[in-house]
Amino acid sequence: MYKFLNRINSPADLKQLSVDELPELCDEIRHYIIHSLSSGTGHIGSSLGSVELAVAIHYVFDTPDDRLIWDVGHQAYAHKIITGRRDEFAHIRQKGGIGGFPRRSESEYDAFVGGHASVSISAALGMASAAQIEGRESKTIAVIGDGAMTGGLAFEGLNNAGTVGADLLVILNDNRMAIDHNRSALRDYLLGISTSKRYNRLKTRVWNMFPAGSRLHNAFKRIHNAFKQGLLRHSNLFESFKFRYFGPVDGHDVKSLVAVLRDLREIKGPKLLHALTTKGKGYKPAEENQVVWHAPGKYNPETGEIIKGSQNGADKFQTVFGQTLVDLADRDGRIVGITPAMPTGCSMDLLAKAHPDRYFDVGIAEGHAVTFSAGLACENLVPFCNIYSTFMQRAFDNIIHDVALQNLGVVMCLDRGGLVGEDGATHHGAYDLSYLCCIPNMTVAAPYNEAELRNMMYTASLANRPIAIRYPRGGGDGSEWRDKEFEELTIGKGRCLREGEGTAVLSIGAIGIEATKGVNKAVSEGKNPAHYDMRWAKPLDCEILQQVARTFAHVVTVEDGSLQGGVGSTIENVLRDMGFNGTITRLGIPDQFIEHGTVAELRQMCGIDADSIAAAIK
Amino acid sequence: MYKFLNRINSPADLKQLSVDELPELCDEIRHYIIHSLSSGTGHIGSSLGSVELAVAIHYVFDTPDDRLIWDVGHQAYAHKIITGRRDEFAHIRQKGGIGGFPRRSESEYDAFVGGHASVSISAALGMASAAQIEGRESKTIAVIGDGAMTGGLAFEGLNNAGTVGADLLVILNDNRMAIDHNRSALRDYLLGISTSKRYNRLKTRVWNMFPAGSRLHNAFKRIHNAFKQGLLRHSNLFESFKFRYFGPVDGHDVKSLVAVLRDLREIKGPKLLHALTTKGKGYKPAEENQVVWHAPGKYNPETGEIIKGSQNGADKFQTVFGQTLVDLADRDGRIVGITPAMPTGCSMDLLAKAHPDRYFDVGIAEGHAVTFSAGLACENLVPFCNIYSTFMQRAFDNIIHDVALQNLGVVMCLDRGGLVGEDGATHHGAYDLSYLCCIPNMTVAAPYNEAELRNMMYTASLANRPIAIRYPRGGGDGSEWRDKEFEELTIGKGRCLREGEGTAVLSIGAIGIEATKGVNKAVSEGKNPAHYDMRWAKPLDCEILQQVARTFAHVVTVEDGSLQGGVGSTIENVLRDMGFNGTITRLGIPDQFIEHGTVAELRQMCGIDADSIAAAIK
Repeated sequence: MYKFLNRINSPADLKQLSVDELPELCDEIRHYIIHSLSSGTGHIGSSLGSVELAVAIHYVFDTPDDRLIWDVGHQAYAHKIITGRRDEFAHIRQKGGIGGFPRRSESEYDAFVGGHASVSISAALGMASAAQIEGRESKTIAVIGDGAMTGGLAFEGLNNAGTVGADLLVILNDNRMAIDHNRSALRDYLLGISTSKRYNRLKTRVWNMFPAGSRLHNAFKRIHNAFKQGLLRHSNLFESFKFRYFGPVDGHDVKSLVAVLRDLREIKGPKLLHALTTKGKGYKPAEENQVVWHAPGKYNPETGEIIKGSQNGADKFQTVFGQTLVDLADRDGRIVGITPAMPTGCSMDLLAKAHPDRYFDVGIAEGHAVTFSAGLACENLVPFCNIYSTFMQRAFDNIIHDVALQNLGVVMCLDRGGLVGEDGATHHGAYDLSYLCCIPNMTVAAPYNEAELRNMMYTASLANRPIAIRYPRGGGDGSEWRDKEFEELTIGKGRCLREGEGTAVLSIGAIGIEATKGVNKAVSEGKNPAHYDMRWAKPLDCEILQQVARTFAHVVTVEDGSLQGGVGSTIENVLRDMGFNGTITRLGIPDQFIEHGTVAELRQMCGIDADSIAAAIK
Repeated sequence: MYKFLNRINSPADLKQLSVDELPELCDEIRHYIIHSLSSGTGHIGSSLGSVELAVAIHYVFDTPDDRLIWDVGHQAYAHKIITGRRDEFAHIRQKGGIGGFPRRSESEYDAFVGGHASVSISAALGMASAAQIEGRESKTIAVIGDGAMTGGLAFEGLNNAGTVGADLLVILNDNRMAIDHNRSALRDYLLGISTSKRYNRLKTRVWNMFPAGSRLHNAFKRIHNAFKQGLLRHSNLFESFKFRYFGPVDGHDVKSLVAVLRDLREIKGPKLLHALTTKGKGYKPAEENQVVWHAPGKYNPETGEIIKGSQNGADKFQTVFGQTLVDLADRDGRIVGITPAMPTGCSMDLLAKAHPDRYFDVGIAEGHAVTFSAGLACENLVPFCNIYSTFMQRAFDNIIHDVALQNLGVVMCLDRGGLVGEDGATHHGAYDLSYLCCIPNMTVAAPYNEAELRNMMYTASLANRPIAIRYPRGGGDGSEWRDKEFEELTIGKGRCLREGEGTAVLSIGAIGIEATKGVNKAVSEGKNPAHYDMRWAKPLDCEILQQVARTFAHVVTVEDGSLQGGVGSTIENVLRDMGFNGTITRLGIPDQFIEHGTVAELRQMCGIDADSIAAAIK
């Protein structure tokens, strides 16, 4: 079907094409991406924006001997397609299929994992330093978006790379977007570079030194001298870190990119190429509405019509969070919202519209988001800081040192707790209950359903203590929550969902809905289990536990989180200290990394679906 | 005794002095610090370097209504002395006395905790944003060292502050040092600013606009215009983040500092004052040997002679680590060492001397240190990344996403695991066993003594898997380790230290030495407990646990770490799953923040000293 793409099974095939044939190949790759992703849950915007970069890099460099690291793998779809995974690409992010991010276990071309942002420069510097130690000539390339560049880790990497002086090429894939619009000083700075006359003059000068096929050595000398003369020294952010800055260049002009990369390949030391790209490039609906088309769900590739009901935006807990935050902020002027570049994903865009003065998108910077919230809480505001569970791992020390130790009233909302599905191993919110509960002073809540999330948020707004609320991606049991009166819950008090005998099921959070189904199934099989919704992972409800210890012979704990150090583990400690001598079955995510698949598939695999829970009831 | 200092009980008293009297007050404070710290464990270098800054800030600003945040509290000793804690200062860092870092619970003048580096800008931005929301006029000042400035969190804060445009003054206390010499691109950049003619010209021009007592409004306008003309725009790292840059200025000229701060107080928006200081300023021995005098232990204040045996450098596990790493690197060219600015503290300075090409001081950047190590491990090197346990909290996600998920052979050595003593609540390595053990693919070791640390390091160098070794500050039981043959341990195998009956004591790590003493005490009282050194927190030795489950009626677990999600908790889960129906006593650090004191005092408080362990044996 495709003239060029059908022959590309590896970068070696790519190198058989002439430079003039590359633009058509890029068109074909783009067409293939648009049509392949229309049926599912892929990330189309970023992937369309980096087609030319992927093609040019593999055309010029000798991957996999040269190491190529994609910072956040949404950029890496074209990379996957041209490195032997063209056909598998049709099943990306499905159970058993290839993953959505680069994975070392998947391909030798995937030099480093790319699930979390901002890691590429540090990892690349490690590889470049190793090459230096081992006396190898191989090159290292990190491609990082302007969104990921706001993460502190990226700066730590830049700063250290400049010191070490390693042979490293960083390509800044600048589309002025994270998932949402990139709002940061850095973004404005980059925009300033791209548009200012002074920088365009410098750019032109640098480019003129690099006509394709010119005498490279002389050109290099002249550039080097220009730098030495201090033309650019101290005059550019990246130069401050001892990187040589080149650009900005058009990141969709594949032929120019090839020429530039050929030249840069010969220049030693740390260097940064600033490439301007467009998110959704080449697909009109995606270019026009970049936020929605980051991950649009199902769509008609011909018309660009998004097929309703398939979009992430319909996720229920997220809507409850966003609307409830607005409702609370309407009533209470102390409430503020903080998101590290995820307003649409977590629905804090609603607060942004309703109370822009009390809304902060701090960029991809989870650690800062939490410490900044701590500062707000010092002044008696009530910050709601929403961070995906998997990304909250980056703010672990900020929670300990800045929030919990000072016992500050920060409300940390952990979205996407538990198994997340198609994003896979890098994104499951599997560890939050373990890493939050070991922090002194913390209160940790997990709502059973929508209505409970709303009341927990209300309760948290009054609590004036460090409190985390974790809830999953997607919907609950469809409980009524809109416009309901707020109810203040008692912290540390669970509730009995069903009286019973023999076995008590103790669930925490929304996996309790699965537990309810499992309990109902067991009841239909003639058993009579009790079911308690613990509500608070910390402090645990010791009255319920006392009663359970006295009354039941068998306890089943259910959590959508790691069994290691999780709630079930602690419940066992408490029950045994109470003298409970029955059996305890702890259900949760086993102590291993769980790959991608649908949430239903993965729950079954982990044994926390309704059937598994029913089977555990004696 | 002191002419001025004796009258200073608050900043209000300070404001009674004339500007001309301030230099003498600074001399007195310096003298007081030098004499007060001579008996103990204070941090003298940083504190002497920031006397004038503390005096000038409190003289000009209206603390505590204006918020003052010290990034890493070693800088804040003079601040403590002039904010009502002059007499208590003599007992700094002692149990019941004031702490070594700013603490909100200690004084209204301590606006934010300052135990971990790089948090101040984020916290200050939160406070400044709150003032904006609440319509208050109060000012916010963050004082941050050039060492702390290399932490990614500081950049996240700068980047966000520039976006928000909050009214915030950052004072960069630039002494070109962390604990050791600051080696980073940023440091060289700052040095470049300080010495270059161009910047000195600009500096002079800016200064001339600010003669003390001038018509401020006009001066401000002119500066503003100068910025608008782009004189400094894009030309300075901090300007890139939309901060106005002022300086560099002499951070020890207190009268000039007062004049500058008075002017800066009137300028709205984010601004940075670059102050050059000298670590150990005014005390010759401390100026001449800045690394040793960061925290010299006991010394003679008159002669500057350090009293032997009192210095941190004599810590035994640290020496074992440093020398063993060299011994391993001598034998194995794949071994490299990585430290985030702690070469002296962890003894990696030995590797720096022996194998400089395989040694990396990456600056205060723990997240980067781990991800950089992951990159090195991708290339089949064997990185030993040494980070204090409390600071490893900052690399939690890097361990999960970059190391464990990819199953890379990074050896993470967690120094200062468990209770650390005088540094107090911000520094105890209390959570590492909990947060490491919940990560899949991790192996977690804790040596009983010096000899075991050496063999665990050897074992780790051969293991090619993610492995953490955590050991405490200070010495073990004096076991022989130097020049001993390396012995490869079996991962997941503990050892029996004493056979017995009735009670089995299961200890993990060097707290086992305390357990041995407790066991001996119990034996002397006629009991006959068994004692097992588990060696590996993960994977646990299930053979030992099987045997214990079969043989004993009572189990005592002992760990120098949090009870919540700790090793004792998991041991209980495993034993109960094996059908063990006896009693279990879990000893460890309770679920609360532990303040400062000697390690012995704190162990007793937590019930993990020999007497408490003996008492737990039935």
